[in-house]
Amino acid sequence: MPNFMEIALQEAEAAAQRGEVPVGAVLVSSAGEILARAGNETEALRDPTAHAEMLALRIAASRRESPRLAECDLYVTLEPCAMCTAAISFARLRRVVFAAYDPKGGAIEHGARFFSQPTCHHAPEVIGGVEERRAGALLKKFFALKR
Amino acid sequence: MPNFMEIALQEAEAAAQRGEVPVGAVLVSSAGEILARAGNETEALRDPTAHAEMLALRIAASRRESPRLAECDLYVTLEPCAMCTAAISFARLRRVVFAAYDPKGGAIEHGARFFSQPTCHHAPEVIGGVEERRAGALLKKFFALKR
Repeated sequence: MPNFMEIALQEAEAAAQRGEVPVGAVLVSSAGEILARAGNETEALRDPTAHAEMLALRIAASRRESPRLAECDLYVTLEPCAMCTAAISFARLRRVVFAAYDPKGGAIEHGARFFSQPTCHHAPEVIGGVEERRAGALLKKFFALKR
Repeated sequence: MPNFMEIALQEAEAAAQRGEVPVGAVLVSSAGEILARAGNETEALRDPTAHAEMLALRIAASRRESPRLAECDLYVTLEPCAMCTAAISFARLRRVVFAAYDPKGGAIEHGARFFSQPTCHHAPEVIGGVEERRAGALLKKFFALKR
């Protein structure tokens, strides 16, 4: 099976080169098929909802012709925010694997901790910290250049 | 100025007639111009992110050619969920006016209470309960018919 986090990191790098916050995501079926891969596109699409995870969910749901993606897994280079965490729940994903933790904006292990709320009606399995250093280095470099 | 919640309620009614959960949203500029109006389309678009608020934000941002909608207001018939609440924050809206409270899935006054989290970096003014009974009655009728 391919290294899905590696592909997510490639998407994050491509996002950085477009001037977008470098976050990448890959959505994978239970058979290991890549249904969608995406990087952040909030600036290019002029869309505040166009985080990598949201784009990957929307592309995969469109391919599956269903708003629900049960048994699918998401690989993403940064801990998802509240928007993406709730969208992951709505899509009923099986598993979320993320790289860097995000104390400032994350909503799985930080802040809203959405999967632990009584208003969350589906919580996937979560694995954090995979390739954490590489994903974090990409973000640090991006924001250092911005300043 | 038009009654924006009335227009949001019309969008919710139209959503119900399409078999979608009846929620409607209207996005308004500071000058009182309607930038976007939308109803839920998760089933029709096969998109788990296609809540009325998200569609309205995306349409308005596209019209404004910016992912940020400062000074704009959102009128929505149901308390926004965590996904929409975070998206509202990212878009930097000035004010959110909602009708029915949503103890099961809301994220402003319930659950994640996103605008009160340290991971929320912009919180709009919030007015809840406007036309609460009408919006709630639409939802109750929809779910009663579903059973």
